[in-house]
Amino acid sequence: MQTGQFGTTPQERYLEDYVTGDVHEFGPVTITEAQIVQFGRQFDPQLFHTDPDGARQSVYGGLIASGWHTCGLFMRLFVEHYLPERASLGSPGVDELRWIKPVRPGDDLTLRATVHKVNRRAANPTGGCCSPSARC
Amino acid sequence: MQTGQFGTTPQERYLEDYVTGDVHEFGPVTITEAQIVQFGRQFDPQLFHTDPDGARQSVYGGLIASGWHTCGLFMRLFVEHYLPERASLGSPGVDELRWIKPVRPGDDLTLRATVHKVNRRAANPTGGCCSPSARC
Repeated sequence: MQTGQFGTTPQERYLEDYVTGDVHEFGPVTITEAQIVQFGRQFDPQLFHTDPDGARQSVYGGLIASGWHTCGLFMRLFVEHYLPERASLGSPGVDELRWIKPVRPGDDLTLRATVHKVNRRAANPTGGCCSPSARC
Repeated sequence: MQTGQFGTTPQERYLEDYVTGDVHEFGPVTITEAQIVQFGRQFDPQLFHTDPDGARQSVYGGLIASGWHTCGLFMRLFVEHYLPERASLGSPGVDELRWIKPVRPGDDLTLRATVHKVNRRAANPTGGCCSPSARC
């Protein structure tokens, strides 16, 4: 089990375990051509996500993963290694989501999460909200 | 084929077809319990996305879709009805992504996209970039 800088596993992790300034890294996960095509056909049927031959004629020169697919792969790492299993209440949203470089078949993806601020939600003082800047 | 306020289909649509101020609506699509659980197990294995019984004990009182799943459903509508099939170059990212209300099995989801601004990308003057505010 990868625990990053945490001293705890996700099963025994609570708000107190998220320390401002800590940087946690998890992964890598590898993405395959078959996974890219399957996700693309289901959710993002643009040529450069669904058709290896057609994608070669596109501006990307080959198949690339849907940005939402990489978000899904990020989320899996985030749930399995970063979030507290018992205390997570879900998320209100995401800011400044950026797809900086194309993700291609065979790429290894790593998650790096920095704890910028830890606070209790104003609207729900029994719940905590940490604000990681997560990049994958 | 739904075309919103466009006078063109996605196959014959170009930058000129995106008019500032236009509001386009597409859908609905329906989400099922089986789809929610399948996506949750693959990408977001939190109890309230994967286990109908366990989810009843959660703060949500029942199964809800992963926010990334609703993004995928939004994207499918966006690709099939809003984006230009031939001229889309992909996206650099998303700002202010918000999951405002839980999405539950059987919910009908509709996409509403407002064209706020249309401009050519500074870094790639042959490509255009419209900045829709999309909600689903």
